[in-house]
Amino acid sequence: MGRTSTARERLLEATGDLMRSRGYSSLGVAEICARADVKKGSFYHFFESKQALTVEVVDAYWRGELACWNGALAGPEPALERLRRLLDGMADVQRRTKETSGTVDGCLLGNLALELSTQEPGVRARLEEIFDEQIALVAGVLAEAAAEGAVPADRATHATARAVIAQVEGMVLLAKLKNDPTVMDDLWPHALMLLGA
Amino acid sequence: MGRTSTARERLLEATGDLMRSRGYSSLGVAEICARADVKKGSFYHFFESKQALTVEVVDAYWRGELACWNGALAGPEPALERLRRLLDGMADVQRRTKETSGTVDGCLLGNLALELSTQEPGVRARLEEIFDEQIALVAGVLAEAAAEGAVPADRATHATARAVIAQVEGMVLLAKLKNDPTVMDDLWPHALMLLGA
Repeated sequence: MGRTSTARERLLEATGDLMRSRGYSSLGVAEICARADVKKGSFYHFFESKQALTVEVVDAYWRGELACWNGALAGPEPALERLRRLLDGMADVQRRTKETSGTVDGCLLGNLALELSTQEPGVRARLEEIFDEQIALVAGVLAEAAAEGAVPADRATHATARAVIAQVEGMVLLAKLKNDPTVMDDLWPHALMLLGA
Repeated sequence: MGRTSTARERLLEATGDLMRSRGYSSLGVAEICARADVKKGSFYHFFESKQALTVEVVDAYWRGELACWNGALAGPEPALERLRRLLDGMADVQRRTKETSGTVDGCLLGNLALELSTQEPGVRARLEEIFDEQIALVAGVLAEAAAEGAVPADRATHATARAVIAQVEGMVLLAKLKNDPTVMDDLWPHALMLLGA
């Protein structure tokens, strides 16, 4: 019974682990079940499809990430300092993954966005909501930075926030391609350029 | 005999077409052969593996892209104007793909970089060379822009060129995620911010 009660969680965790480095299409249900130690017949008791499972994996991943985002962006420090803490944290994640697994795995959300946007509408829709939420969080901290006089008012916009997120995803792509997390060291100085700060 | 002599080219073309929208892992050799109208048994006469085929597809794609890059970057115009022509051309590609296929398919090279960097070392290595070549081309035009006084000398660097390429790839990711090529309209103003121009 203990095993049954956690099979769903094990499937979510196994899929998250495998998908971070391998993406969606190369994973089969059989492999996910083997990693989770769940009988293949049970899979469809918990999830109607690999796509439905993936949406839940994405949700769980973003819940964890969002806690980090909120932790980084909260506090009494000036807004730009909090934004820097957020972006430095993203660089740290790539560094730690390289140290533990040997590879820069990139961002699960960005990986799936490029792999699945033209193929899996349900996953794409959820990823779009999450990226919109990220852009809104950055735009919020930019508005605070502008109020503090640290960023020109005409840079405290949704468009600038989106460019910062684009810069993050592009740098993560190049870090993954080179399997070199130090590529991310360039993120903050270039984010400052985008902010005109 | 005519058919035999072009089977290789048909396999390359079919794979390029399928891979641009679908990525690598979701494609099987059988599907590629069906699209190319080539018997599956012949596939391994031409390519030792799907990975080997993919490296050739990437090469062919980049040869085509490079011709566009060189066309955009050549000419008597000021360097920044030529760089803008290059980036506007990238936005046009996404717009045209949306018009013809209904979806923003993104950049084959960026798609494969995120999907395969941790999985297919041969493809990864070739993609790394191509992105290095892109960064060098942008760095070259930034050096010209600096000589013309259009960009501060301390911005005419490899790091800035890499940040511009990261911005391109990040914006393409967000355009693909939203299936909205107008996201790319933001590319040039943000590239100018990165250049301090």
